[in-house]
Amino acid sequence: MNYAALHHGGWLEYREALPDGRLRIRLRCAREDVRRVCLLHQGIYEEERFRRIFEETPMALAARDRLHDWFQADYLPKDPRQCYYFRIEDGENTVYLDQDGVKTEQEIALPLSLQPFPYAYVYPPRPLAPWARGGVGYQIFPDRFRRVGEAARGIQPWEGQRYDQRSFFGGNLRGIIESIPYLKELGIELVYLTPIFLSDTAHRYNTFDYYQVDPMLGTADDLKELSQKLHAAGIRLILDGVFNHCGLRFAPFVDAKRRGQDSEYYDWFLFDEKAQNGYRSFAYARYMPKLNLENPEAQAYFLQVARYWIRQADIDGWRLDVSPEVWPDFWRQFRKAIRQEKPDAVMIAECWDESREWVSGRDMFDGTMHYVLSRAIWRFFALGQMTLDDFDAAVNHAQMIYPSYLNDAQWTFLSSHDTCRFLSRANGDGRAQRLAAFFQMTAPGVPIVYYGDELGMTGGDDPECRRPMAWEKAEGNALLNYYQKLIALRRSLPVLRTGAFRTHLCGADGLYAYLREEGKSAALCVLCTGSERGERNLPLPEAMQKAKTLHEHMQGVDIEATGGAVSLQLAPGGCWVFTAL
Amino acid sequence: MNYAALHHGGWLEYREALPDGRLRIRLRCAREDVRRVCLLHQGIYEEERFRRIFEETPMALAARDRLHDWFQADYLPKDPRQCYYFRIEDGENTVYLDQDGVKTEQEIALPLSLQPFPYAYVYPPRPLAPWARGGVGYQIFPDRFRRVGEAARGIQPWEGQRYDQRSFFGGNLRGIIESIPYLKELGIELVYLTPIFLSDTAHRYNTFDYYQVDPMLGTADDLKELSQKLHAAGIRLILDGVFNHCGLRFAPFVDAKRRGQDSEYYDWFLFDEKAQNGYRSFAYARYMPKLNLENPEAQAYFLQVARYWIRQADIDGWRLDVSPEVWPDFWRQFRKAIRQEKPDAVMIAECWDESREWVSGRDMFDGTMHYVLSRAIWRFFALGQMTLDDFDAAVNHAQMIYPSYLNDAQWTFLSSHDTCRFLSRANGDGRAQRLAAFFQMTAPGVPIVYYGDELGMTGGDDPECRRPMAWEKAEGNALLNYYQKLIALRRSLPVLRTGAFRTHLCGADGLYAYLREEGKSAALCVLCTGSERGERNLPLPEAMQKAKTLHEHMQGVDIEATGGAVSLQLAPGGCWVFTAL
Repeated sequence: MNYAALHHGGWLEYREALPDGRLRIRLRCAREDVRRVCLLHQGIYEEERFRRIFEETPMALAARDRLHDWFQADYLPKDPRQCYYFRIEDGENTVYLDQDGVKTEQEIALPLSLQPFPYAYVYPPRPLAPWARGGVGYQIFPDRFRRVGEAARGIQPWEGQRYDQRSFFGGNLRGIIESIPYLKELGIELVYLTPIFLSDTAHRYNTFDYYQVDPMLGTADDLKELSQKLHAAGIRLILDGVFNHCGLRFAPFVDAKRRGQDSEYYDWFLFDEKAQNGYRSFAYARYMPKLNLENPEAQAYFLQVARYWIRQADIDGWRLDVSPEVWPDFWRQFRKAIRQEKPDAVMIAECWDESREWVSGRDMFDGTMHYVLSRAIWRFFALGQMTLDDFDAAVNHAQMIYPSYLNDAQWTFLSSHDTCRFLSRANGDGRAQRLAAFFQMTAPGVPIVYYGDELGMTGGDDPECRRPMAWEKAEGNALLNYYQKLIALRRSLPVLRTGAFRTHLCGADGLYAYLREEGKSAALCVLCTGSERGERNLPLPEAMQKAKTLHEHMQGVDIEATGGAVSLQLAPGGCWVFTAL
Repeated sequence: MNYAALHHGGWLEYREALPDGRLRIRLRCAREDVRRVCLLHQGIYEEERFRRIFEETPMALAARDRLHDWFQADYLPKDPRQCYYFRIEDGENTVYLDQDGVKTEQEIALPLSLQPFPYAYVYPPRPLAPWARGGVGYQIFPDRFRRVGEAARGIQPWEGQRYDQRSFFGGNLRGIIESIPYLKELGIELVYLTPIFLSDTAHRYNTFDYYQVDPMLGTADDLKELSQKLHAAGIRLILDGVFNHCGLRFAPFVDAKRRGQDSEYYDWFLFDEKAQNGYRSFAYARYMPKLNLENPEAQAYFLQVARYWIRQADIDGWRLDVSPEVWPDFWRQFRKAIRQEKPDAVMIAECWDESREWVSGRDMFDGTMHYVLSRAIWRFFALGQMTLDDFDAAVNHAQMIYPSYLNDAQWTFLSSHDTCRFLSRANGDGRAQRLAAFFQMTAPGVPIVYYGDELGMTGGDDPECRRPMAWEKAEGNALLNYYQKLIALRRSLPVLRTGAFRTHLCGADGLYAYLREEGKSAALCVLCTGSERGERNLPLPEAMQKAKTLHEHMQGVDIEATGGAVSLQLAPGGCWVFTAL
């Protein structure tokens, strides 16, 4: 057995309390190294009174990446104070893993030797709002989405050729309001707007006034109306909170810059002679001075902003820009502040990396933009620079770096205002996009559609990915229909929203099958990622072995299962979702 | 190479900002598996602009346990926004570890493939007070330490035979005040008192009134005087904060119990029909009702208590009872509250287990009672149930489960009011205690002496370990002299307080040598844990290779080094501390 690879972190992704009170415990082992793992658990104070009466719960293989297997077990503790350890067997040896490390049977029998991992006190988390777990979102870059009304002077024609931050297209909130029927038909459950407050750029990430909707976009009343009408259509509204930095004309910055240390706002920023321009900024962008949220007055100011727009416009949460660079405790207070205003408000981090530090789901963010998973999607489906095995390993890995409850709140995306559009990344390969969208809509997380991707819009890195919405393509657009179908399917099968992900099959011919399962529900998702054609027998997973007939949701047909398998006609880009009848 | 064993957690013990701004990065590998590790690092935004200009810092082997090697490197970042990955060589293969996993040279060259670990924004911690890092502490159980004044009615004679919680010996604050010269002579830098507030037990962990010093112990003025006089003697004062639970006569509990849901205090507790007695309590002790610190009013009340005694008696911090079972966010607020009152106040957790969840040293506790290390000390020195190799592995392991800066604030102890006294655990073997004390006083952490251990007091598990202080043994006590010498030595050599720990040698003959080193200082600590006698040549570590003469601090003599080694006369219990002259 590869003892050195056995790993249990003792918290976060390794030790999770679910809202229903169950505990979920994970153990990492070397890949295909271990045969049987058993979780031994009991109440901490039982342990003190009656040693060695641990209950046993077998652990099942939950995920496998290139190097590791993850075993997982759930149990309902009788007492909130728990402890546990692991018995691990590879067929030859049996060892135990406790907080000190790997021990033999003889060793754990010695006095003071066995030291189970503690779960000192289980506080189950409050459940997230259903729309925030597995719901489908839509990202809008307001200047470029839709314009209603006359174009003001200096505004680009909608088909304009320059997309930089100084080129305005005049998209506005009224344009979004008028697009609600479109969003509803697409099946969207939440809309995320990039910044809308007063600024002098089209992206508005350099905020001048956090209390004023940019007049070019509309008014606070428009925002309120947008929120109301979205809600009436069953759609939630998330705004972009840019609290890492501000814009040059943000009044406190103007004052601090002018009056220096005499300004009461001086400490809201990070003036620093060694820094470029004399103050720290976001990246190296001098027009985005960094905010110092360690300062209590600055904290209070921005917490008030966060509350204000919930109260004022009834928004449903914030996506937080450059969140990992902000003073961490600000986010803890932010969580409390917005939840006081609206108990199910969410906060989503913009973390481009593995984010366990920020997204325990307990004290800071509810989720993050899941770049880790999204990058794997890009590399496999768009760039073709990963084998199917490696892609599957990356998907499995991505499921195991966070607590499972949190995975369902992670935003997954094919494109965004910060990245090349998927279709351009895939060099115009529409089939690649359809496969990637199928995967996105059948995988865990909150799939976010970047405005226009559903119409086949293209565009490279910023600013090309910020072209104005190609409304002219909407009529009779096959890709749009495909997105509508996928989203409707996701919404009709709850197991696609919140079921666990398990790889079923990675075929050498590119056939990829994975199961989503939750309780007694299961959906088998299958896609042809290769170029082979012809008939292929797909063995069904255990959960479906007994089914005689399956429903296939993409074609809307029933299919007979024979000998625990179904027959598929492989074709490039083919995809199926099966449930047992 | 054992790829599956390569591990970097991305934060806490694996990624630490030191108060001086340096970053310390660790990597875990399988034991003796890897030859060379290099840290590749750069600013995040440099990376965006100029890919692949990572700087290289070689990583050194910092610790080794039974299964793992830990490599470590420090560097001073030029920008607070950093990212890094690892190059790992075993002589045959070279691979890279980034946030996605292990990759080959070819793999990291692919687009989007290399994903360095992020250190999104480095906020160096504020330095801890010097006394809180590596200082020597003394734990007092007030009822049993010293009585000044007449014994009240019902008080046990000092040499009494019953030590249970209903037997009072009448030790008091005045007794501690009068013992300050003793503590000072012993070399103590901080005193930790178990609870002193109004209660009806001798241990006072069931508090009736958090604002009243138990009259049997003295008054608030006595506490103030104690604090002043300790401070005048250069000694800090830490109180025991029992905020997980209260006592039955705590007024809010009395009210809540009587009036049920009509009481404004009802939600300060966890009334629960399914619980024993109708309310949740500490362990199964019905006389200790659990507090619900998720309740904002209860939170505010206890934060006020924490502040009050700092303001009132100028105490220097709190040791927090049963801390891991308390609503976590209470501790974050607690940290802010006490630091507002006194910037260098400390808070120490009572965690019996691996405590990374609680002691990042950033937002909750500054340290914990280091049971993980203390248990290894007990098992090796007292019980003799670990080989020297295993003990050394446990010590190395204990150094690697927390950020290194935090290790110096961890309380290490041979005995406590909750555990058997060391001498009893060692079955009366005084040599075992002397060796263990030598190790405790030359190892990282804050060594805490449990009152009377220095006089050779015995006593098994609670309540036997709470016998009244054996003042009669103090006069001419050799063990006391030994403790004084060890403590004076620790205080005279700063490297023993805060130097890194590195194993130098584990001999088959029981000779154990480890280095404490910090910058250019180094101290080599050596002890005979076996029973062999005779001459033995001890090769010196690299840091001392050039020294011609060493000073040996236990005997106070200079010793010649020949050929990079010193000659030792082994004898059971022998111990030496060498520094280069």
